[in-house]
Amino acid sequence: MPAKIIKGLPVATTMREEISTQVKALSSSKSIQPKLAVVLVGDDEASRVYAQAKEKVGEKMGIKVELHVLPSTTSETDVIKLVDQLNTDKNVHGILVELPLPKTIQKENVMNRIDPKKDVDGVHPVNRGYLLGGQEHLALVPATPLACIELIQRSGLDLKGKKVTLVGRGDTVGRPLASLLIKRDATITVCHTKTVELAATIKAAEIVVAAAGAPKLVKAEMLSPGQTVIDAGINQLPDGSLCGDVDTEPAAQIVRAITPVPGGVGSLTTTVIMQNLLKAIGLQS
Amino acid sequence: MPAKIIKGLPVATTMREEISTQVKALSSSKSIQPKLAVVLVGDDEASRVYAQAKEKVGEKMGIKVELHVLPSTTSETDVIKLVDQLNTDKNVHGILVELPLPKTIQKENVMNRIDPKKDVDGVHPVNRGYLLGGQEHLALVPATPLACIELIQRSGLDLKGKKVTLVGRGDTVGRPLASLLIKRDATITVCHTKTVELAATIKAAEIVVAAAGAPKLVKAEMLSPGQTVIDAGINQLPDGSLCGDVDTEPAAQIVRAITPVPGGVGSLTTTVIMQNLLKAIGLQS
Repeated sequence: MPAKIIKGLPVATTMREEISTQVKALSSSKSIQPKLAVVLVGDDEASRVYAQAKEKVGEKMGIKVELHVLPSTTSETDVIKLVDQLNTDKNVHGILVELPLPKTIQKENVMNRIDPKKDVDGVHPVNRGYLLGGQEHLALVPATPLACIELIQRSGLDLKGKKVTLVGRGDTVGRPLASLLIKRDATITVCHTKTVELAATIKAAEIVVAAAGAPKLVKAEMLSPGQTVIDAGINQLPDGSLCGDVDTEPAAQIVRAITPVPGGVGSLTTTVIMQNLLKAIGLQS
Repeated sequence: MPAKIIKGLPVATTMREEISTQVKALSSSKSIQPKLAVVLVGDDEASRVYAQAKEKVGEKMGIKVELHVLPSTTSETDVIKLVDQLNTDKNVHGILVELPLPKTIQKENVMNRIDPKKDVDGVHPVNRGYLLGGQEHLALVPATPLACIELIQRSGLDLKGKKVTLVGRGDTVGRPLASLLIKRDATITVCHTKTVELAATIKAAEIVVAAAGAPKLVKAEMLSPGQTVIDAGINQLPDGSLCGDVDTEPAAQIVRAITPVPGGVGSLTTTVIMQNLLKAIGLQS
C-alpha cells in the first residue's frame, strides 16, 4: 500500500491562523506592528523568489516584510552597516539575511553581527548555543529544522522514545535538528558521509529525517515498512525539476508515511520564520 | 581476558609537557605570563579541592592560578561585578567559576557574563554555539567532553566512521560531546532516560561513552566484546567511595578496553582547562 503523504500546506495553514491571531492581539494590546527586515545582496534568482514569498506570506498575517535589496558589489562593511541600523531600529523586530551572499563577503561576519534577539533564522552563535545548552526557550531556532519538528509533531507523531535516524550533519539543518530531537526525548542516530552502515542504520529507525543535501540519497531499499520519512532536502536536478534527499516515489511504496518535495518541509519554513518573529518580539520586551 | 585499562594520567602527562613548552614560548617571545582566575563562591568542599588542584597543576606548567574565594552570602550582583573586573583585566586570560554556586545565585546570569574569549570551561552560549555551528576552531570547549576526546584520540583510537553510543544528553557533557564526536566523523547515537532499547543500543556500539551522571548505570550485560568504554561519570556512593556511570569491574571482563573511575577522564579535566587557557590567549590576540 502506498504511504500516507504528509503535506506541509495544511500544517502551514493552521500555523498561519495562530500567527494572525497573535499579530492582531499584539496590535490591539501593545500597538506593536510586527516587522521583518529581509536583506538580499546580489541578484541570486532563488533568493529573490524566497524573499518575495516572505513578503506575500507575511502580508496575509498582518506582518510587514521590508525588503532591502543591495547590489552584488556591496562591500562587507556596508552590509554590516545596514545590519547595525536594523539592529537599533525599534520598529524592526526580525532580521533575515538571505543566503548565499556574494563571495566577497564573509558570511560569518554578517551573521554574527545580527542582534541575537532579532535573529529569526537562528544563525547567531548565541542562538545555537542556547540550543546546545538546553535553553531552547531563549533561542531563535533555525527555520528548516524547526519546520521538521512542527511537521512531525503537528502530524500527531510522538517523538518520545522513538528511534530517529538523521541523515546529515550540516550546521543549517542536521546538527540543530539533532538538538531539537534530543530535547523531545527521541533516541537519535546521526549519519553522514563517513557512516559505514548507512542503509542498516536507516532501516533500523522508526523515523528517518533526511537532511544531507544530496538528491535521492535515501533509496527505497534502505527503508522499511512502518517508518515515517521526513525529507528536509531540496535539490535542483539538471532538467530544472526539484527533488528531495529521498527517492520519494519508490520509497512511498515501502514506508508508512512520507513528506513530498516540494510541498513538504519547505512549505513550512517561511511560516516558521514568522512564528520566530513573534517569539523575537517576546524576547525583546 | 580482562580489558585493557585506559588510564588518564599518562595522557595528562604528555599534554602537560606540551603545555609547559607552549607557556615557555609565550613567556619568551611575547612576554605573556598565562593567568587563570578561579572564582569560588561559598564553602563547597569538593569545589575547594578542585580549585586548589588547579593551582598546583597550573604552577607546574608555569601557569599562574589566582583563587578568588567569596563567602556563600555574596550576592549575584557582586559575583557579576568580580566577573566584569576579570573580563577587563588584561593580565587575566581565563576565568573559571566553580560550580555549584549558592542557590541564591542564578548560574546562567554569571556564566553568560564571562567574556567568551576567557571562558576556559566553555559555558557561555557563544562557545556552545560555535560548537553546534561547526566553528570549533573559534570555540572554547567544555573540559569534560574535551577530556573524553583527548583520551580517545591520544589512546590511538580512530573515531572516523565508528559507531559510538553516548549514554547521557546533559548540557555539561552529553550534548557538547555529541557535537565533538560528529565533527570527528563518528556515527553517534545519543541515549537517555527515555530510550526504549538502552541495552541493545549500547551493545551495538564500537565505542560506548557513559555520561549520564548515574552510578553504575551501564552493566556488563549491556556490553559486548571488542568494545571500548569511556566513562565520563563521577559519582559518590553512600560509603564515600567514588564510582563512574559504568559498573567497571564486571564490565572489564567483557570489553576490549575501559577507562577507570577515578583515574580516567577525570584525571584530564584540569589539564584540558590549561590547554583551553592557551587557546584563549590565542583567541584574545
